[in-house]
Amino acid sequence: MAQKPSIPKGTRDFLPADVARRSYVINTIKTQFERYGFLPIETPSMEKSASLLGKYGEEGDRLMFHVLNSGEKVKKADVAALAENKLGLFTQSISEKALRYDLTVPFARFVVQHQNELNFPFKRYQVQSVWRADRPQRGRFQEFTQCDADVVGAVSPILEAECIQLFDAVFHSLDLKDATIRINHRCILSGIATYLGAPDRITDFTVALDKLDKIGAAGVFDELKQKGFGEDALAKLTPLIALSGPIEKQLDTLESLLSDQPLAVEGIAHLRHVLRFVSPLNASNLAFDLTLARGLNYYTGIIYEVAPPQKVALGSIGAGGRYDDLTALFGLKDMHGLGISFGLDRLCMVLEELDLYPKTLQQAVDVVVLHFGDEFMQELMPHIIGWRAKGVRVFTYPTTHKLKKQMQFANQSNAPWALFYGEEEQKKKVISLKNMVDGATEKISIDTIDASLFIR
Amino acid sequence: MAQKPSIPKGTRDFLPADVARRSYVINTIKTQFERYGFLPIETPSMEKSASLLGKYGEEGDRLMFHVLNSGEKVKKADVAALAENKLGLFTQSISEKALRYDLTVPFARFVVQHQNELNFPFKRYQVQSVWRADRPQRGRFQEFTQCDADVVGAVSPILEAECIQLFDAVFHSLDLKDATIRINHRCILSGIATYLGAPDRITDFTVALDKLDKIGAAGVFDELKQKGFGEDALAKLTPLIALSGPIEKQLDTLESLLSDQPLAVEGIAHLRHVLRFVSPLNASNLAFDLTLARGLNYYTGIIYEVAPPQKVALGSIGAGGRYDDLTALFGLKDMHGLGISFGLDRLCMVLEELDLYPKTLQQAVDVVVLHFGDEFMQELMPHIIGWRAKGVRVFTYPTTHKLKKQMQFANQSNAPWALFYGEEEQKKKVISLKNMVDGATEKISIDTIDASLFIR
Repeated sequence: MAQKPSIPKGTRDFLPADVARRSYVINTIKTQFERYGFLPIETPSMEKSASLLGKYGEEGDRLMFHVLNSGEKVKKADVAALAENKLGLFTQSISEKALRYDLTVPFARFVVQHQNELNFPFKRYQVQSVWRADRPQRGRFQEFTQCDADVVGAVSPILEAECIQLFDAVFHSLDLKDATIRINHRCILSGIATYLGAPDRITDFTVALDKLDKIGAAGVFDELKQKGFGEDALAKLTPLIALSGPIEKQLDTLESLLSDQPLAVEGIAHLRHVLRFVSPLNASNLAFDLTLARGLNYYTGIIYEVAPPQKVALGSIGAGGRYDDLTALFGLKDMHGLGISFGLDRLCMVLEELDLYPKTLQQAVDVVVLHFGDEFMQELMPHIIGWRAKGVRVFTYPTTHKLKKQMQFANQSNAPWALFYGEEEQKKKVISLKNMVDGATEKISIDTIDASLFIR
Repeated sequence: MAQKPSIPKGTRDFLPADVARRSYVINTIKTQFERYGFLPIETPSMEKSASLLGKYGEEGDRLMFHVLNSGEKVKKADVAALAENKLGLFTQSISEKALRYDLTVPFARFVVQHQNELNFPFKRYQVQSVWRADRPQRGRFQEFTQCDADVVGAVSPILEAECIQLFDAVFHSLDLKDATIRINHRCILSGIATYLGAPDRITDFTVALDKLDKIGAAGVFDELKQKGFGEDALAKLTPLIALSGPIEKQLDTLESLLSDQPLAVEGIAHLRHVLRFVSPLNASNLAFDLTLARGLNYYTGIIYEVAPPQKVALGSIGAGGRYDDLTALFGLKDMHGLGISFGLDRLCMVLEELDLYPKTLQQAVDVVVLHFGDEFMQELMPHIIGWRAKGVRVFTYPTTHKLKKQMQFANQSNAPWALFYGEEEQKKKVISLKNMVDGATEKISIDTIDASLFIR
C-alpha cells in the first residue's frame, strides 16, 4: 500500500464542518461590507513578480512564493548567478510570477490598471487567499484568507467613523461581545515625539510604548533610558501613559498636555470629528490607545486595532488605518486610502473558544431518507424532488444497507430528521418521520407531506 | 510615471459587476449541491508535487505550475540535470509543491488522508480555483474555477439519477432553458466495439463517432474505413447512428440490435434503471447520445455531458460520470465514485449571451446618501446605522462635492435610490428621496423613515 498522502506544511484541508464555520464568518463579514457600500473585487492568485517584489521590504521578498516558468523556459536558468549565491537573480531567471502576498498591493495595482472603469470614491472589499513562506505555528499558515475593505479616492471623517461602525456591526452579528476597538492617530504620536524632544525618534519611543501592557511603565522607562531619552522626556511622558477613563476625557487631557504641539492638536481634533459620527453607537467598546502604533511605516492618519475579549489570549482580530499614496507605487499619485482588515483565522479561533458558532451550522442536511428498496424510493422520488425545489437539503441513502448502518449514518450526519418509507408505510400510505433530537417518531399521511415538514 | 501595471497572461481581474455575476452562478450551484446532500470541503492551493505528478498524463505534467522552494533551498538546484536537458529532474530539485491542477486528484488524496473522519457514503462539493499553464484563448484561462460534486463509497442508480436531477435543478434555477443533458454508458460503447468485431478498438471508433455532428455519417464511415473497419462493421453501425426519438425508444432499438452483446445489454439495463428515478422530471431535455465518449480512460459506467442551448455556439457546460478506484492512486482500493462538474466560465458566457442575469445584480447599493455638510450627515447617522442593521446597503457620499458630481456617482452606482438631506429638508423635517429609475422625488417626514423605504 502506498504511503498515506499528506499536504505541504503550513497548509490545511477544510472538512465540511470547518467550511461551514469559515463560511459563516466570511458571509457575515461580506454582508456587513456590502451594507457599508463596499463592492467585491477579485484579483489573480499569481501576480507578475515585478508587481510584488520590493513592496513588502526584505522580509516580504524572502517569504514570497515564486512560481516557476513553465515548460522550456526554465532552460534560461542563470546558473552563474546561482554559483555566485545571487539567489534573487537566479530566481528571477526562472520565475516571472509570484503568489499574492497580501490583498493591498494587488488592490493598488488593480486601481491603477482599471482607474477608467471605476466609480470614485471606490469602496472595494476582497476576501481571498494569500501565501507566505513563513515558518508555520499555531494560528499561522502558509496559505490563509484575508478579508479587506478599503476606500480610495476620498478623505473624510465619515469614512473613518464608518470603519468603526463596521467593526462593531461585524462583531455584533457574530454575537462577539467585549471585543475592543482601539484607535490612535499618527499625528498624535508625531506630536508626542516632538514634545519629548525627539521628533525623529518616533519609532524608538512607540516600540517601547507598545510594551506597556507587558512590562509596565517602569519597564518602558528603562527601555527609553537605554535608548537615550532623558529624565525630562520621561517626566513628560508620565501623565500621557497614565491616561484613562472615557475616550472624550482622555482626549481632553491629551489636548491640554500637548497644546503646544500643532500636529498632536490636529490629530486630536480629527479623532473628535470622527467620534461625532460614531456617537450613535454604544461606544463602550471603543477606546483610545496611545500605545497603538501599528504600521507606522505606512499609516498616515487614524490607526485601528481590534482586540478579542480579554479572556481569549490571542492577538488582534482586526486592524486598519489611513494611508496616503498607495497607488503611487504603480504610478498614480494622490490617491488616498483608508482600509480595514479582519483576521479570519484568529476570528474563527475566538468564536470556537467562546462557543459562539450557531448550533445550526452542524446541520448540513435536513433529512436523511432511509432506503428500503427501489420501489419505495421510486414512489418517494417525486416528493423528494419537490422538497428539494423548496430548499430542503435531502440526503437519500443510496443503497439498502442494514437499518442500523443507515441510522448510524443519519446520526453522524447531524440531520434533524430521518424518514422511513418501507413496506409497512406503503400499506398504510404514510411516511414515518423520526425526530433525531428527541427520538419521537410520527406517521404522516403521504398525501400531506410537503417541504414544511422539515422546516419547523 | 511608471509603466501601467498588468497581470500575467491568462489570468483575470474581476470587477464588482463580474464578481456579482460569478457569485450569482456559484451560489446557485452551491445551493443545489447542498439540496442534494453534498457537503463542502476545501483543499490547499498547493499540493505536494508527488501527489500530482503523473496523475494527469504527460500533458498534465507539462502544464502544471510548480512553486519554487523558498529561501536557501533553491541552492540545491540540480545544474547537471539542467545541462543534460532533464527539465523534469531540474524542476524537482528546486520545487516540491505544485498548484492544484483539478479538484479530483486532491479530492482523492483528501478521502484517503481523512478516511477515518468522514461519514460514508461521502458526498462532497468543492468550488475552488485550479491552475494550468495552457495557452490562453477565448474561454480558456490559466486560473479558473471548477465546481465539482462527487460521491464516493456507494454505487447506486439513485445517485446517478440524482446527478441528472441536479443538472436540471441548476439550469432551472438559472432560468437556462433548452440545455441538453446527454447520457451514455461505457458498457454500451464496449458492447458496440465487440459487435463491430473490434473489441480492443473502442477508442478508434469513438473518436470517429464523436465527429458525427461535424462531418456527418459519410465522414465518420470514411474515417473508420481508413482505420481498417470493414464494410460489414460499417453496415452494422448504420442503424446505430441513425437512432432517434424519445430516449426509451432509442434504448429499445439499441437493445434489439445489440441483444447478443452482454456488456451492452447490461449498460442499457442500467440506464433504464437510472431513468426510472428520473421520470418525475420533465425529461424533454434529457437525451441518449451514443457519440458521447468523454473521459473513456477513466469513466467506467454512466457518462454525462451537458450542451448549452443550440443558439449559443459553445462547448459543454457540464460533464461527469462514474469512475472506479479513484483513490487507488493513494493506496485506498475499492472506493468507487461518481462525479459531475459545472464549467463556470462557459456557464457565465452562456448566461451573458442569453441575457439571463437578474437585473438586480447590477444594484450593489440600495441608496446613495448625498452629502450637504457635516451637520446634516451627523443628524442622519443614527438612521443610517439603523437601516444598515436592517440589511439596507447604504453608500454615504463622503465629501461635499458639487451636487452634479455626487449625482453622477449615484447614477453610475446603479443605486435605485438617492437620498437628499440638506438645509431645506432640515427646516421641514423631511428627507427627499429620489427614485433613480423614474426620476420621481418624494418628501418623507424624518420621523417615519425606516429601512422599508428602500426595500419596496
